[in-house]
Amino acid sequence: MNSSFLDFRSDTVTKPTAGMLDAMMSAKVGDDVFGEDETVQKLETRLAETFNMEAGLFCPSGTMTNQIGIKCFTQPMDEVICDQTAHVYRYEIGGIAYHSAASVRLLYGERGILTPELIEPEINEDNIHYPNSSLVVLENTVNKGGGSCYTLNQIAPIHHLCNIKGLKLHLDGARIFNALVATGDKAHQYGKYFDGISVCLSKGLGAPVGSVLLGSKETIKKARKIRKAFGGGMRQAGFLAAAGIYALDHHVERLKEDHDHAKALANALISTSYVVSVMPVETNIVIFEVAKGTAQKVVDLLKEKGLHCNTTSASTVRLVTHLDLSATMIDQAIEIILHL
Amino acid sequence: MNSSFLDFRSDTVTKPTAGMLDAMMSAKVGDDVFGEDETVQKLETRLAETFNMEAGLFCPSGTMTNQIGIKCFTQPMDEVICDQTAHVYRYEIGGIAYHSAASVRLLYGERGILTPELIEPEINEDNIHYPNSSLVVLENTVNKGGGSCYTLNQIAPIHHLCNIKGLKLHLDGARIFNALVATGDKAHQYGKYFDGISVCLSKGLGAPVGSVLLGSKETIKKARKIRKAFGGGMRQAGFLAAAGIYALDHHVERLKEDHDHAKALANALISTSYVVSVMPVETNIVIFEVAKGTAQKVVDLLKEKGLHCNTTSASTVRLVTHLDLSATMIDQAIEIILHL
Amino acid sequence: MNSSFLDFRSDTVTKPTAGMLDAMMSAKVGDDVFGEDETVQKLETRLAETFNMEAGLFCPSGTMTNQIGIKCFTQPMDEVICDQTAHVYRYEIGGIAYHSAASVRLLYGERGILTPELIEPEINEDNIHYPNSSLVVLENTVNKGGGSCYTLNQIAPIHHLCNIKGLKLHLDGARIFNALVATGDKAHQYGKYFDGISVCLSKGLGAPVGSVLLGSKETIKKARKIRKAFGGGMRQAGFLAAAGIYALDHHVERLKEDHDHAKALANALISTSYVVSVMPVETNIVIFEVAKGTAQKVVDLLKEKGLHCNTTSASTVRLVTHLDLSATMIDQAIEIILHL
Amino acid sequence: MNSSFLDFRSDTVTKPTAGMLDAMMSAKVGDDVFGEDETVQKLETRLAETFNMEAGLFCPSGTMTNQIGIKCFTQPMDEVICDQTAHVYRYEIGGIAYHSAASVRLLYGERGILTPELIEPEINEDNIHYPNSSLVVLENTVNKGGGSCYTLNQIAPIHHLCNIKGLKLHLDGARIFNALVATGDKAHQYGKYFDGISVCLSKGLGAPVGSVLLGSKETIKKARKIRKAFGGGMRQAGFLAAAGIYALDHHVERLKEDHDHAKALANALISTSYVVSVMPVETNIVIFEVAKGTAQKVVDLLKEKGLHCNTTSASTVRLVTHLDLSATMIDQAIEIILHL
Repeated sequence: MNSSFLDFRSDTVTKPTAGMLDAMMSAKVGDDVFGEDETVQKLETRLAETFNMEAGLFCPSGTMTNQIGIKCFTQPMDEVICDQTAHVYRYEIGGIAYHSAASVRLLYGERGILTPELIEPEINEDNIHYPNSSLVVLENTVNKGGGSCYTLNQIAPIHHLCNIKGLKLHLDGARIFNALVATGDKAHQYGKYFDGISVCLSKGLGAPVGSVLLGSKETIKKARKIRKAFGGGMRQAGFLAAAGIYALDHHVERLKEDHDHAKALANALISTSYVVSVMPVETNIVIFEVAKGTAQKVVDLLKEKGLHCNTTSASTVRLVTHLDLSATMIDQAIEIILHL
Repeated sequence: MNSSFLDFRSDTVTKPTAGMLDAMMSAKVGDDVFGEDETVQKLETRLAETFNMEAGLFCPSGTMTNQIGIKCFTQPMDEVICDQTAHVYRYEIGGIAYHSAASVRLLYGERGILTPELIEPEINEDNIHYPNSSLVVLENTVNKGGGSCYTLNQIAPIHHLCNIKGLKLHLDGARIFNALVATGDKAHQYGKYFDGISVCLSKGLGAPVGSVLLGSKETIKKARKIRKAFGGGMRQAGFLAAAGIYALDHHVERLKEDHDHAKALANALISTSYVVSVMPVETNIVIFEVAKGTAQKVVDLLKEKGLHCNTTSASTVRLVTHLDLSATMIDQAIEIILHL
Repeated sequence: MNSSFLDFRSDTVTKPTAGMLDAMMSAKVGDDVFGEDETVQKLETRLAETFNMEAGLFCPSGTMTNQIGIKCFTQPMDEVICDQTAHVYRYEIGGIAYHSAASVRLLYGERGILTPELIEPEINEDNIHYPNSSLVVLENTVNKGGGSCYTLNQIAPIHHLCNIKGLKLHLDGARIFNALVATGDKAHQYGKYFDGISVCLSKGLGAPVGSVLLGSKETIKKARKIRKAFGGGMRQAGFLAAAGIYALDHHVERLKEDHDHAKALANALISTSYVVSVMPVETNIVIFEVAKGTAQKVVDLLKEKGLHCNTTSASTVRLVTHLDLSATMIDQAIEIILHL
Repeated sequence: MNSSFLDFRSDTVTKPTAGMLDAMMSAKVGDDVFGEDETVQKLETRLAETFNMEAGLFCPSGTMTNQIGIKCFTQPMDEVICDQTAHVYRYEIGGIAYHSAASVRLLYGERGILTPELIEPEINEDNIHYPNSSLVVLENTVNKGGGSCYTLNQIAPIHHLCNIKGLKLHLDGARIFNALVATGDKAHQYGKYFDGISVCLSKGLGAPVGSVLLGSKETIKKARKIRKAFGGGMRQAGFLAAAGIYALDHHVERLKEDHDHAKALANALISTSYVVSVMPVETNIVIFEVAKGTAQKVVDLLKEKGLHCNTTSASTVRLVTHLDLSATMIDQAIEIILHL
């Protein structure tokens, strides 16, 4: 964490702890393009087992695991159904169109949370004018929903709908461990609901680089080839994978702290006069609303006081808690918020 | 027109009149791929002049002229802004993604009519996460808006916004002549507002096949190459182009009849008990609402009586008037509607 | 045929005969996008039966039928194997890459004719670095091979290889009827060897516009959707289809005349001092070699005398015989050739 | 290097030295997607300066830097000219078609080395049937050419041709430092000849992961966006970049040893009875020919003796020397070769 300011911009900014760095430095590596990096394989197997999927594939980013997953589950001229705020649609440069030549059907979920009732009418019938609806993508937690979570009880009926309609189901699990910690759901239950899961290691978990795509052996074989095409095959990637394994061992349970921190920030924010409302805080993201047009102004004022964060619209501001923001720092942040 | 029923399904079903057939069969043709079909060239020039554009390109369909236009005005990883009901997005099999590898930003216009206020906030800022907003597509008339029209007064400020923001503006003119007849706007005024215009000949105008893409000489040169890639280059296409020229000479002014017919149908419909509401009728499309879930039932009942039309959702039904539906037939249709 | 010159540039330049025009004018048409044009359906069925395939799809050009076929039989990141002179690779603007996102493996057949021995070593093994070899495309006759023909005896072992290796086999039959007439092979035998056949109506057969893609019912269902995406779905296309049916009835057997004419031209050419060599003439194409760098000069001189043709390289010239070049015109051409 | 065998399969298998590992673990890192990783920036700037280019972009692999470069310099329906053995064509899963929707024109250079004479006739003229020739890709050294090198004297006239014809020139510099060491050319001279250069750090240089794309500021700005789309944007990537910087400081000059080792191996090989011929050795790659069909057998026998290498065809075998193969190991390898 940059010593000179409190960095609430994103949970991607964390830097490895001393322990993680040790784990990286002592990793056994090999040429992963030749399938010879045992640390990478250990990470892939570990996560596949955790989520009860058959296989995993380590990639340099969550954008890559998402886009490869989407490519695995679609053909050109297919259509992907997702929330209109979905990261795969909004923040991956139109990758669904670029990599997969697939169209999108955009839904308006409550804080980004989809339901079978929202999805079903948007599945295209068989007609030469329409793209073939072949994939639903969920995001858990929903970034733009203020870290809102799906429970497995909400996921199961979506899976059921996809199953009877012949659609695949992919999970953008950029912050899946935040969701697991918040809901108390078990990772092992996820495997039966999804065809593909992208698990990110470089957000709340605190690893420097990497995401893992999980799926069936067949899917991951296909994904491995697509990863090569994307240029995501790395040689001695075990250094990065070792950080991921360390994070799984040490940084999952502590996510609860981040969530508590987020709630504390929310409480402070809602008590101020410049905040109109705060989205319910479920995990490590706090999104609050100020008067329209003043979000950037609030961000600038906070920055002057040493608290860095970003706007998410002309009237909304986002703070993200993470591993590099200690309880003391949260207290400092609250002071800043209260006396802005 | 099929003698056995009243065909209100679409204005694409018309068959050439005797006069049009004569014009087709006496057309002077040549190999248009070699640039030697004078009838095709005459049609392209005629329409370019009509709309005050530099050049035209004859294609087998409006889907092709639209998709080639979009390809001309975008790069992969760009974003196209259009209404969520737009034909180019909904009914062309995700062609924006397939042909142009471009993403879409979908707006909710009133009956599909966009405004600068709706468009401006959806133009992406320069950021590596976002597709580059490069094109706005309007549709005039709006099919799913029940034939709603843009006037030039509405188009001018959208053009102005695109101009200052560096976006191109394309018109899906599937029913542009209906709009011109309804609004009283002049075709010649259109050229200055649009980078590309797709004009369809096989809907209200009654030609059997074809659309023309209009644009600058440079755009049309590029479009001609893309047309070749699409396989839209036809050899002795003058037979089809001749029908288009005949239609421009004989079938434009009479569109007013279709509009009057549509209004008469709407008046009949609104007086019945099974119709909840009718969209305002501006041109040749009538969309009415029945109780949810019964649209197909109404369509089936009308069909039994000899009136063919289609649902546009679970509770809405569309009727389209055209050249092959005479005043007498409209009277018959009204009788059927009133006594269903 | 343009009355002012002898047009040997291509067999695409023919214009409908009076009989063909009559057939066109009396065609029964309907909206083919709605599946209601009986003349189009008659043509599709007729050709499917002729070639012993399950179904057919009428398209505006051979480029479209080829590219749709290739799209049907490949996935992105696949590889298409064809001769390096193949029309689908050379003259369709890189459509294999553009429409299908597929790579090419280019072979050097004798006058464009491939063999199992040439193909087999170029089929990629299963390796993440390589595209998946999924399709072989043959062209019969081979345009750049000077109208060279495959016999069924040559095709059978290629089919066998594809079959055991899991590749599909597509035929670019731009001039398939020329090949049938020249080899004496039966069209009905073709169906069992190919997954897709593109049959062109607007070359030697003399129809103004159109090609038909043949394949299994499943392939053609898929192709119909892709055709819609390409914008190749035409409304009252029966006028064009009627010309195709007429051509099948009246213009197949007469192709032998074109072949005889081509041989007569070749005999004249080889006797001149400015011709170095003439490719063996098998069908309606004559390619001859002049001193390097002078092909354009010879073409220009012939043009001055009223004989139009094109170069195919700096030292080669191509003449194509067709329906609009009568025996008398061939005699005139020979006079020009002999006294250049 | 795996202790149990002599690994001549590729120079990608090297593992970081102790010094490199130290450099990695003490790297100052930040979130590179936010432009805050100073070590990544240092590497990018360092290489840009070395090659006299304006800017650089760190990516997870050479496949990614190549494919992003090709995407920067082409449009869909363009054509890329390269040797038929080029890595960008052969070993990147048809990425030219997949990512760039561009076609390829394949040349047959002497050991993969192209010349203006080979390239010029393959540049397409402006014609609607042809893809637009927009890019030439060179590879230095040429992997499949047995490590053959271009000198700047050979590159200059190719650049000149591209310049006057309006084509861009990209260098796949997977082993550019081997070429520089072998030819004595200066890296700083390269910038003026190329629009893009891909420099690989994980081959002879011995870094675990990464390549850098070099180009103009405008190109790299575009490339940075495409990298995000590819999912190649990594968070705290400075750990990997630090290894690259260390490699540039310590592992460039020593490439001469690898070249000497390769020559020693070649001398041994040519003296044996099972080797038919050895390609001239210019850098760190040795390709030798055995009797047809026995390449795999020779590889298997060598493997039994503890020397691992790969076939490159049914009759050819490749050995690659690198940082992890010491002089002693080379002596061991020579013993194995001589007494197979």
